[in-house]
Amino acid sequence: MQSSLPPTLYLSADDVIGIVRRVGLPQCIAGIAERIERDFLRWQQFDKSARVACHSHDGVIELMPIADEREFAFKYVNGHPKNTREGLPTVMAFGVLADVDTGAPRLFSELTLTTAIRTAAMSAVAARKLARPECRVMALIGNGAQSEFQALAFRDLVGIHTLRVYDVDPAATAKLVANLVDERIDVIVCSSVAEAALGADIVTTVTADKANATILTADMLAPGMHINAVGGDCPGKTELHRDVLKGASVFVEYEPQTRIEGDIQQMAPDFPVTELWRVLSGEASGRTDEQQITVFDSVGFALEDYSALTFIRDTAIKLGIGATLKLIPTTADPKNLFGVLETRHAPARGDLLSA
Amino acid sequence: MQSSLPPTLYLSADDVIGIVRRVGLPQCIAGIAERIERDFLRWQQFDKSARVACHSHDGVIELMPIADEREFAFKYVNGHPKNTREGLPTVMAFGVLADVDTGAPRLFSELTLTTAIRTAAMSAVAARKLARPECRVMALIGNGAQSEFQALAFRDLVGIHTLRVYDVDPAATAKLVANLVDERIDVIVCSSVAEAALGADIVTTVTADKANATILTADMLAPGMHINAVGGDCPGKTELHRDVLKGASVFVEYEPQTRIEGDIQQMAPDFPVTELWRVLSGEASGRTDEQQITVFDSVGFALEDYSALTFIRDTAIKLGIGATLKLIPTTADPKNLFGVLETRHAPARGDLLSA
Repeated sequence: MQSSLPPTLYLSADDVIGIVRRVGLPQCIAGIAERIERDFLRWQQFDKSARVACHSHDGVIELMPIADEREFAFKYVNGHPKNTREGLPTVMAFGVLADVDTGAPRLFSELTLTTAIRTAAMSAVAARKLARPECRVMALIGNGAQSEFQALAFRDLVGIHTLRVYDVDPAATAKLVANLVDERIDVIVCSSVAEAALGADIVTTVTADKANATILTADMLAPGMHINAVGGDCPGKTELHRDVLKGASVFVEYEPQTRIEGDIQQMAPDFPVTELWRVLSGEASGRTDEQQITVFDSVGFALEDYSALTFIRDTAIKLGIGATLKLIPTTADPKNLFGVLETRHAPARGDLLSA
Repeated sequence: MQSSLPPTLYLSADDVIGIVRRVGLPQCIAGIAERIERDFLRWQQFDKSARVACHSHDGVIELMPIADEREFAFKYVNGHPKNTREGLPTVMAFGVLADVDTGAPRLFSELTLTTAIRTAAMSAVAARKLARPECRVMALIGNGAQSEFQALAFRDLVGIHTLRVYDVDPAATAKLVANLVDERIDVIVCSSVAEAALGADIVTTVTADKANATILTADMLAPGMHINAVGGDCPGKTELHRDVLKGASVFVEYEPQTRIEGDIQQMAPDFPVTELWRVLSGEASGRTDEQQITVFDSVGFALEDYSALTFIRDTAIKLGIGATLKLIPTTADPKNLFGVLETRHAPARGDLLSA
């Protein structure tokens, strides 16, 4: 009897870079946004939990599992703001899809680039429901690894044509400006958060510092603004002053996780928030008037990675990209794991050590 | 500036089979047992949590994270007893080691074979403290994928020279007998659990059914027995009758996890148990007299996988086994993730699709 174990598809960083180049970044953002919307509409079908975080002095490592009836997904992701000083990325990630029915791992993929795309897609999906319909100007605070993805997602899915950008690191801003030169979006470099927020319809904060920061204060707000708060995503890592939250309608991904990790960690446990899936499904209101200030207190939820992983997997298969991993030892009799060690049935030793 | 990201070592199933063949299975069991003892003695240095489980109708998928100051480890593992009917293993696993300081993933390895080895090593480490010193006969109930590993671990580390074996599936027992033919251990095939337990110094239960079973009942016990209960490791999956636990001194790996998953899930939340690390360190007593019945209510804890992963990693490096994965996209400027998509600096398209 031959083992019926299905193969595990492996997508390296270069494979996913190849996929995004072939398909196009705007198309990948739109494709993942579509998956996120579709999956959020079947929210009740998922077995959800707050992610498991391991905090250290300079950062955090997290595991983010989720499953529906058919597929189990998880992401490994870190957040180490100090990494960039050593030439390393702040965020590195990979993810897995497995069959719920058998537990067999079916996909092992890079998720660093993919996380940047899905985070931007998630922000745009939320803004389409929460920002005013005619938003054209966005302040972009924090011009690091995530910033270009936010810019393109809001250009294509929300209609933003002008960015007002600011970062404490001028080199990061210069990099953002250079990267957006050919991207049909006007970029205005500002010298402070307050200046960037001036006249903006939407304020997106994507800063990296692991600190209780007050990047955005209430005096910078104007009526009708939408705040897309992406960088405050960890206990002790916030971006908004309490007063910003107090005066706003606040929307979250998965409330049990955001209470611990989001900007609302500063507020009382009964501070009112609305889960975004309820707005997408029509069960709850999003923006109700032109003057309202809305906040999407985004921390990143496992369901978004499920959506991104299935998109990348399906696209890789369509394009014929990726390799196969032999991760699980197989034997003719699955109860005979010991049998894989028997040298009488073994391939030549050289084969085993070729890797 | 070149990226300073360290490589991720990949160990496939064949790589780890190759390592175990080169080093020898008994030597791997002993090596991992030594690591487990060493790591349990520094219990307080680990950031511990109960594993995260996703239960479905026929099985469970679990993530098991743990970290010390330097290394973060986690294992993905499933348990699907019905898999063997489809030619698939009940348990499949893989694991990761990462640097706590930066979050960089450093090892991605098979853990199916390795889990069988570490589980047997853990059982033997516990039995050395909890069983009577002159144990020679062990009943082995459940003769599936885990059974040969238990047999060899108890032969080498505890001094067992006779096995009394039983399984509801006679083919599994026949496989076990055939696999142990050259292993310097006497095997007596029994026709019931009660018969297997008769005259045994140690009873090891490694059954797979996801059910509240009562494999072992109080009438099968004799004074001075040690029960090594390995198969009851999930809510709704137990092996011992309550009365077996009631009359015994019960030892566990990590109490918060075992209360949910172990055979003690049947008992009141204040049913007394002792964490094994306290016995290993001398803080608590193990066996105190010849007549006492001891139970190691083993469910499998993340620290054992940490020990196994570091052993396998160090051995692979020594032997020069394994490949390198390019899992993380790297750029000269780590804040310029967007830059990996720029085609002007890109390698030829063919390179990206070669996998």
